[in-house]
Amino acid sequence: MKMMIVILGDQDAEHVLQALVDNDYRATRISSTGVFLRRGNTTILIGLEEERVDGAIELIRENTTVPEDTDRRRATLFVLPVSRYEQL
Amino acid sequence: MKMMIVILGDQDAEHVLQALVDNDYRATRISSTGVFLRRGNTTILIGLEEERVDGAIELIRENTTVPEDTDRRRATLFVLPVSRYEQL
Amino acid sequence: MKMMIVILGDQDAEHVLQALVDNDYRATRISSTGVFLRRGNTTILIGLEEERVDGAIELIRENTTVPEDTDRRRATLFVLPVSRYEQL
Repeated sequence: MKMMIVILGDQDAEHVLQALVDNDYRATRISSTGVFLRRGNTTILIGLEEERVDGAIELIRENTTVPEDTDRRRATLFVLPVSRYEQL
Repeated sequence: MKMMIVILGDQDAEHVLQALVDNDYRATRISSTGVFLRRGNTTILIGLEEERVDGAIELIRENTTVPEDTDRRRATLFVLPVSRYEQL
Repeated sequence: MKMMIVILGDQDAEHVLQALVDNDYRATRISSTGVFLRRGNTTILIGLEEERVDGAIELIRENTTVPEDTDRRRATLFVLPVSRYEQL
């Protein structure tokens, strides 16, 4: 199991969340503000099996817009190891 | 030291936070919305020693309500390894 | 690559974020409430290279105020390992 933390522009958040849900990923949107992408942004937590990480990244890539400002990125993401995972 | 990330329904958040604090766990509530549990939810971060993980899970179990919809879970939680922990 | 999670009092959040940005750290502010420091608090996520962790901690130390209540801390921080890091 992995925890993916995705930081992306607000304008792409709904599209990405919908695409994740449509593909049976389990995602939580965290309200955030910040300077990671130098504009209003959203943080998404995704709990997923390691073999589904590539698929999630591909979905994020397909559902984010390329910024006009070439210094900016569409999304930044971190995949964190998980020691233990429980559903109660 | 571990970082526990708990995602649970809004209706249980206050009870769980209170139980954690009453038992000397250090918890932070993050406002979140999302599709992890298909309803309004809350994310809680808990920094804790590894030997206290089981106790935290037990508290969460005791302080969450069982959803009527049997497809839903009471809570989803991830325990993440921590490389370094500092209190300033 | 590491993910640093910092929990600090609201009154210090702007100073710390500004100092991080001025020093080319990439930080995201998450709105949070909670009991970690027993007052209104803010959670900041910082994605950074391992060799920059000490510098970030020093900046946080320099830009937080010492609480009058000696039971309280200025900030609590966790450095998490990252399995994979991508910028899209």
